[in-house]
Amino acid sequence: MTLAPYAPAAPLAPSDLAGSPAHLPAGAVSPGMTSDVAPTQADSFPLALLLEDKLVVLVGGGAVAARRAAAFAGAGARLRIVAPTLHPSIAELLGPQDEWVQREFILGDLTDAWLAHTATGDPAVDAEVAREAEWRHIFCINAGNRDAGTAAVPARATAHTPTGRVQVAVDSGDPRRSVAVARHMQDELESGRAPLHPRRRR
Amino acid sequence: MTLAPYAPAAPLAPSDLAGSPAHLPAGAVSPGMTSDVAPTQADSFPLALLLEDKLVVLVGGGAVAARRAAAFAGAGARLRIVAPTLHPSIAELLGPQDEWVQREFILGDLTDAWLAHTATGDPAVDAEVAREAEWRHIFCINAGNRDAGTAAVPARATAHTPTGRVQVAVDSGDPRRSVAVARHMQDELESGRAPLHPRRRR
Repeated sequence: MTLAPYAPAAPLAPSDLAGSPAHLPAGAVSPGMTSDVAPTQADSFPLALLLEDKLVVLVGGGAVAARRAAAFAGAGARLRIVAPTLHPSIAELLGPQDEWVQREFILGDLTDAWLAHTATGDPAVDAEVAREAEWRHIFCINAGNRDAGTAAVPARATAHTPTGRVQVAVDSGDPRRSVAVARHMQDELESGRAPLHPRRRR
Repeated sequence: MTLAPYAPAAPLAPSDLAGSPAHLPAGAVSPGMTSDVAPTQADSFPLALLLEDKLVVLVGGGAVAARRAAAFAGAGARLRIVAPTLHPSIAELLGPQDEWVQREFILGDLTDAWLAHTATGDPAVDAEVAREAEWRHIFCINAGNRDAGTAAVPARATAHTPTGRVQVAVDSGDPRRSVAVARHMQDELESGRAPLHPRRRR
């Protein structure tokens, strides 16, 4: 873990986000940012991310961030936590490849990130994080306001088997329902009713 | 749908991918690309993407791409298909906001993308697509070789309810097992055993 406060060499100014990222061919680019994000009504698209060695930036270091950081780390991601203080369970989690940026978020902190997670408790800061992520075209989980982000963490059920983990994710736009369905699916996995070993002779 | 062949104003040369994207602050950046991607052993991380109005680029226009394109479009994504020829069901799917780039892939075709999908049938081309996605730090589904990509499409089960869709995604690293478990979960959703309506009085 990098304990020393980190600062980007050249932090982004808000005006830097007004145009398109400079590495994109100018003629083929539409503006990479929109100033306001409409609430999403369409269904979400479930994807399984292969996060090994990918940088995930979490802004905010409280209990929600702690739970999510453990999940990202379990998938092999490298973590950068941007937060003045850390939940004790995050501090325990961080390894030599991870960073703690011990201060409030500034534009540029998503440098190198593949995925962003914001849970600062301050909607204005969460919106700033979402704005930089939008500019970079990387997905951002906004823990305080699902529809102001571009990705959501589904409810999960998991079974460990000798041939690897089976993961079930449930998303319904209603977290309470998603959790209830995931609990049911967890029962199915644990009861042996779900076919976890389909390779047996038929 | 934009039927006229599209070409980036300034296609990327392979050497352009050697460094870091130019819009990232130089001092804070580690090389954005690795030349070879090790097979992933860690568990995948399930995420629900909110793709409304986000550009998804699909390279290859065959049957696999067609199935995936329908799913992306169902989640509200804009599509860019890069392929000399199109599966008939893709052609039917494309709306005025979508693009068909009627030729083979060239570097730069992922401009503006949030997510990439490659299913060209040619491992060398799929690798080129994955390489550009890696450089941009956007996730790439490699339909021909899961571990050479950075994301995978899970098996799915779905229930439509008056209060929205409930989506269950299953990933296990073994597609046959994932599909078998998802079929079981679909039975649970349809039988009424899964608690799709948890808001009733308790």
